[in-house]
Amino acid sequence: MRDDMIKVVKIGGHIIDNSDALEEFLKAFALLEGPKVLIHGGGKLATRMSSKLGVDAKMNAGRRITTDEDLEIVTMVYAGLVNKQIVAKLQSLHCNAMGFSGADADLILSEKRPVQAIDYGWVGDVKTTNDNVLSFCFSNGLTPVCCAITHDGNGQLLNTNADTIAGELAIAASRVGETELVYCFEKKGVLADVDDDNSVITAINHTDFQLLKASGAIHTGMLPKLDNCFNALKKGVNKVIIGNAAVINKPNALFTTISLT
Amino acid sequence: MRDDMIKVVKIGGHIIDNSDALEEFLKAFALLEGPKVLIHGGGKLATRMSSKLGVDAKMNAGRRITTDEDLEIVTMVYAGLVNKQIVAKLQSLHCNAMGFSGADADLILSEKRPVQAIDYGWVGDVKTTNDNVLSFCFSNGLTPVCCAITHDGNGQLLNTNADTIAGELAIAASRVGETELVYCFEKKGVLADVDDDNSVITAINHTDFQLLKASGAIHTGMLPKLDNCFNALKKGVNKVIIGNAAVINKPNALFTTISLT
Repeated sequence: MRDDMIKVVKIGGHIIDNSDALEEFLKAFALLEGPKVLIHGGGKLATRMSSKLGVDAKMNAGRRITTDEDLEIVTMVYAGLVNKQIVAKLQSLHCNAMGFSGADADLILSEKRPVQAIDYGWVGDVKTTNDNVLSFCFSNGLTPVCCAITHDGNGQLLNTNADTIAGELAIAASRVGETELVYCFEKKGVLADVDDDNSVITAINHTDFQLLKASGAIHTGMLPKLDNCFNALKKGVNKVIIGNAAVINKPNALFTTISLT
Repeated sequence: MRDDMIKVVKIGGHIIDNSDALEEFLKAFALLEGPKVLIHGGGKLATRMSSKLGVDAKMNAGRRITTDEDLEIVTMVYAGLVNKQIVAKLQSLHCNAMGFSGADADLILSEKRPVQAIDYGWVGDVKTTNDNVLSFCFSNGLTPVCCAITHDGNGQLLNTNADTIAGELAIAASRVGETELVYCFEKKGVLADVDDDNSVITAINHTDFQLLKASGAIHTGMLPKLDNCFNALKKGVNKVIIGNAAVINKPNALFTTISLT
């Protein structure tokens, strides 16, 4: 990773759910030079909290709906517990972290997903991001740590996809300076063979992506992640990579570089 | 309230627990001119959440202990649910709010209360506050909204008294500019007769305080609040008042002014 670029790093639930993995990741993240942003999901904690509280997942046509109770739970778990534990840990590692939901300093404005075939409940799609906030954080040596809760500007919090937030914040960061977007997930990168963890495709451009989609080689969970990658590149992000947590500090780590051409 | 002073306002649980009262308060708070800070407790939500989760209050010699589970719950409720709902509401009222725990931007460093006769568990006593953070918030038109969770600098979150946090943040703000500290609670001020809501003592200086304490006229819950008031005044805060939510926008509201002499 280049020291002079803004790094926007998203970590998935597999890191949040494993305290040793999280600790190791945060140590490496704290050591990254230059301006940086961390985006986190909530892992299985929200599901466990729902279960403890006796709140069942509401489904509609196979899709999860965010009810009033779900929104309260994800706000507590993502913006409260997970975000503050990460911020406190980064502070102990001399990384001056500052937790954000999208409502804080109006960082991410979203709108409730319109009701069409399905009403997803309190789910938000990102409308605008605030690069001024990133800019003043970077100028003051602060590292934003962002959870996947946004707001609609009318006082309503909304549950929002963390991969999308990472992509949109990277686009906002690219208006401040050269930006690298890194998706850390449980695999070493995009795999040619989903059953072979070492079958990492080291580079995918937009033509490759269309071919891989057409051939069915890319599994469905990866498609929206790759859509976010290409969207970020089209809108100004300079570099996008997908890999596991090792990519941020292991020079020999395998990963997939996504590029437009 | 003077427009040119920094206002540090603490709201108690009676406002948090009543959505109409909270809405009315936030509308008035959003309209306050000049730099301002809001500090909130968690009200009864944390207790209700504990009860839903089957977590019983642990007591030691009549004092509440903050266990691992309690700390998780207060972090979720105070820093997550309550803080983000307030921040989103203030954003909708065109007040550019930014949520904080003490860990965020290292705003409030505390230390675990030393174990003496009682081990209070994960309770923190404030060590230092960061006026630079308040300063850059004010310079950027941001209104800090602070919950009563702090950190020890070693990655540990700590449950901290919200009245104390309000006092300490007012002291930090007084290093930035002239500061007024306002405690909003359920009464109209310090009462001469606890059974008469209109028996507000309009002014209390340090000598009065000693006399009121000696006579037993001040009920025990009020003593630490008044200690915080005098501590703030001694350490540079210019004005301290205690009243109900009306004090921030009703010119004719009764309240108690606390002064050193």
